[in-house]
Amino acid sequence: MKETQEGITVKKEENFSEWYSQVIQKAELADIRFGIQGFIVQRPLGFFIIKKIYEYLEDELEKEGHAEFLFPNVVKEDNLKKEKEHAGFTPEVFWISEAGSKKLEERFALRPTGEAQIYPLYSLWFKSWKDLPFKGYQSRISVFRNEMTTRPYLRGREFAFFESHDVFNMHEEALKQIEIDLEISKKVIYEKCKIPFLFFKRPQWDKFKGAMNTYTPDTIMPDGKKNQLASTHDLAQNFSKAFNIKVMKENEKEEYVWQTCYGPGIWRIMAAIIGIHGDDNGLILPFDLAPMQIVIVPVLFKEKENKLIIKKCKELEAKLKEYRIKFDDTEASPGYKYNYWELRGVPIRIEIGPKEVKEDKATLSLRINAKNKISIKLKDIAKEIEKYSKIIDEKIEGNANSYFKNKTKETNSYSDLKKVIKEYRGFVKVPFCSIDLDGEKCAVKLKEETTADISGTLYPKEDKVKPNQKCIICGNNAKHLVYIAKSY
Amino acid sequence: MKETQEGITVKKEENFSEWYSQVIQKAELADIRFGIQGFIVQRPLGFFIIKKIYEYLEDELEKEGHAEFLFPNVVKEDNLKKEKEHAGFTPEVFWISEAGSKKLEERFALRPTGEAQIYPLYSLWFKSWKDLPFKGYQSRISVFRNEMTTRPYLRGREFAFFESHDVFNMHEEALKQIEIDLEISKKVIYEKCKIPFLFFKRPQWDKFKGAMNTYTPDTIMPDGKKNQLASTHDLAQNFSKAFNIKVMKENEKEEYVWQTCYGPGIWRIMAAIIGIHGDDNGLILPFDLAPMQIVIVPVLFKEKENKLIIKKCKELEAKLKEYRIKFDDTEASPGYKYNYWELRGVPIRIEIGPKEVKEDKATLSLRINAKNKISIKLKDIAKEIEKYSKIIDEKIEGNANSYFKNKTKETNSYSDLKKVIKEYRGFVKVPFCSIDLDGEKCAVKLKEETTADISGTLYPKEDKVKPNQKCIICGNNAKHLVYIAKSY
Repeated sequence: MKETQEGITVKKEENFSEWYSQVIQKAELADIRFGIQGFIVQRPLGFFIIKKIYEYLEDELEKEGHAEFLFPNVVKEDNLKKEKEHAGFTPEVFWISEAGSKKLEERFALRPTGEAQIYPLYSLWFKSWKDLPFKGYQSRISVFRNEMTTRPYLRGREFAFFESHDVFNMHEEALKQIEIDLEISKKVIYEKCKIPFLFFKRPQWDKFKGAMNTYTPDTIMPDGKKNQLASTHDLAQNFSKAFNIKVMKENEKEEYVWQTCYGPGIWRIMAAIIGIHGDDNGLILPFDLAPMQIVIVPVLFKEKENKLIIKKCKELEAKLKEYRIKFDDTEASPGYKYNYWELRGVPIRIEIGPKEVKEDKATLSLRINAKNKISIKLKDIAKEIEKYSKIIDEKIEGNANSYFKNKTKETNSYSDLKKVIKEYRGFVKVPFCSIDLDGEKCAVKLKEETTADISGTLYPKEDKVKPNQKCIICGNNAKHLVYIAKSY
Repeated sequence: MKETQEGITVKKEENFSEWYSQVIQKAELADIRFGIQGFIVQRPLGFFIIKKIYEYLEDELEKEGHAEFLFPNVVKEDNLKKEKEHAGFTPEVFWISEAGSKKLEERFALRPTGEAQIYPLYSLWFKSWKDLPFKGYQSRISVFRNEMTTRPYLRGREFAFFESHDVFNMHEEALKQIEIDLEISKKVIYEKCKIPFLFFKRPQWDKFKGAMNTYTPDTIMPDGKKNQLASTHDLAQNFSKAFNIKVMKENEKEEYVWQTCYGPGIWRIMAAIIGIHGDDNGLILPFDLAPMQIVIVPVLFKEKENKLIIKKCKELEAKLKEYRIKFDDTEASPGYKYNYWELRGVPIRIEIGPKEVKEDKATLSLRINAKNKISIKLKDIAKEIEKYSKIIDEKIEGNANSYFKNKTKETNSYSDLKKVIKEYRGFVKVPFCSIDLDGEKCAVKLKEETTADISGTLYPKEDKVKPNQKCIICGNNAKHLVYIAKSY
């Protein structure tokens, strides 16, 4: 696997799009050469990180009382069309209508998302209010949509999916679940993956097809585009009515259930990790997310000393085996190895040369600041690694926070917004008439004239509008301060 | 979820097929009401066991130096047809040729197995002999084949898959991998899941499409049918030639690589666990495989004592929280609860009533012998649970071994075989002319006249043929002793 060992040839700041593509291919995260447009191969290094994100989510969902199930990759056509708004997925679905050389009696679709396959079964599973709440999820699955423009981890025709589908007796319980989902997003996306975001309530014209309300954590990528990292939907009784999901209540009356669903964007989180943390040399990864956490590089000179150096390296590898550690004993030069492992985001490098052996020391380099070499005593290595693994995470979090702090501007003027949105890479906060359907025509105008979208209003604590603030588009009284950004 | 709480209504021995279906539906392992023939829903209890099997395999493969990757669910048409024999999958594949209301420019298939999607990438990934060996796998995936007759966990149009794909410089290394795969099958299927099997080398006419040789662990289900639990294939250079997977050797010449692949049948193992371990009351599960390991059932009588009993139960639940434990405080009667949890295979039940509270004791019932009640001191409970968890596994293993010991008969006469195969539920060992292609016509005759198949010869230690033994079909000298059984 030597074809991609040269480093990144562009600066992240100057050409983010090319930098992003090169990191994915050269760090061997994914391979776009699968041969069918929009379908990519997730190579071991990339898939390791994806699995970690899945595991974080599975742990949090299980703690919150969710049980994992698994539905097929396909969905029945009539179920897909049962909920009127949700049927809007139909134009993007792939159809299976033949097998071998025969036409199937009834075609079916590859699922574009889970609702239409899961809810018909929910209508069979629950009979009594005592069966609720029920919290179920499926993880490590794919969904399929016939997208035209595709980019690894941002938009694919098949992409990594995770979804929970919760069922309640009362709307209040469903609303409380939205708060829990928000908390899970914070724990996984921010605390574990170190991706800062803002949490929005989406405008009515941009909610999930069939939902009453949609809530999303969005971040800003270095090219200034908004990256929606997850979404939580208050489905109210829209789907329970369409799919006939009813339970017998304590008063012996049948009633429709209340539902929520939560879908963290596994690939979107991955894209944010690559894009926000990485630098001109490649990936930068929080310690627990790194497929390889420590690499040991021997610095060899003279035949006689080399044996001792290699022996030390092997001892060290054994001593630190609780970590994902690699002793790189290939023939390449130390400089080549440094670049190779930096590109792949290994958080800690240990160098052992004649000087280190003589003094019973090791030299550490941290990926977040590779030029700063740290000399430590070999006997303290376990303690030092533990210490630096925390320092690394704090530094990555600190950098990401500084980055994100500068990603929101504010203006009251449309002409100013138009200027800002051209150059500025971030959210612009502006007064806006309405995020209900009556605001849609202003949003359409905004999109046409600036290519930007309205993310929504901050949630749960919405910004306060001042009495004199007017919608930047129509000039009517503003009901909200909304956040505007370009999308992928 | 109360619709399926009544028990199994048939005896396993009398009507295995109906018993098997009822266990799956009533223990809520899977739901066949998805609405598309051959696609089933894996409910939380069933999917928990499936995940355990996956985890066992992932652990073993990782220990053996495999890295996990993930390919799309689809495969390019021309790749599917590249290897001549392997193209034999084409008549069973599902085609995607439309999206929304448009016809796709190039149709593609849902993968029937991984080779044809993975090997085109392998031809790009490896350049030098130093890149090998490479051991990769994908887990928790689906494959798709347009089967006409389907049964949960035995045959589906979409079914659970796991596959490793290993690449070597030399054929010897590939052959060694076959032995490692055999060992992994033994560790996971026998040691963890307690399913005994025989390991066969398949006849040439029944090997994997494109392989040089196929090796499989097969067991016998209670209805006498053979259940193939996994398969390991020596692909030799058949696929590397078809997909152009070459590396530069030390002597600077390019050579085709040697390959193996290993595919444990996740669902087939699940079917064996249900079928072989279960009894008339439902599931029986090894302790570590059980979604719920312990259930606490309070035996309530008088209001005054009840509070104390419930308090004890809650204390116990907290004390044993390292296990998957459930305190069943629903309103149903103890008898109802016993049946409910026995059906679902919970290995240990703890009963707490007035007598237990008074004497500071607990009454244990083991699923493997529910009628035998064991009185233990409450203070010893952790130690006792640990002890009985082992006893349970030993007992399940012992029962499975006794069962399987009686699943092989031997005969030299075709007329005897024809009689035996009608009634006998197991393998029949007979002398046979050849497992190379020249034996195929005898196998075809056997199949036509008895509906039974030849599993192959024992591997790695083949049975010795006596000099006077003749093929039961053609009467020529027998080269092998082969094992015959009916298949699903």
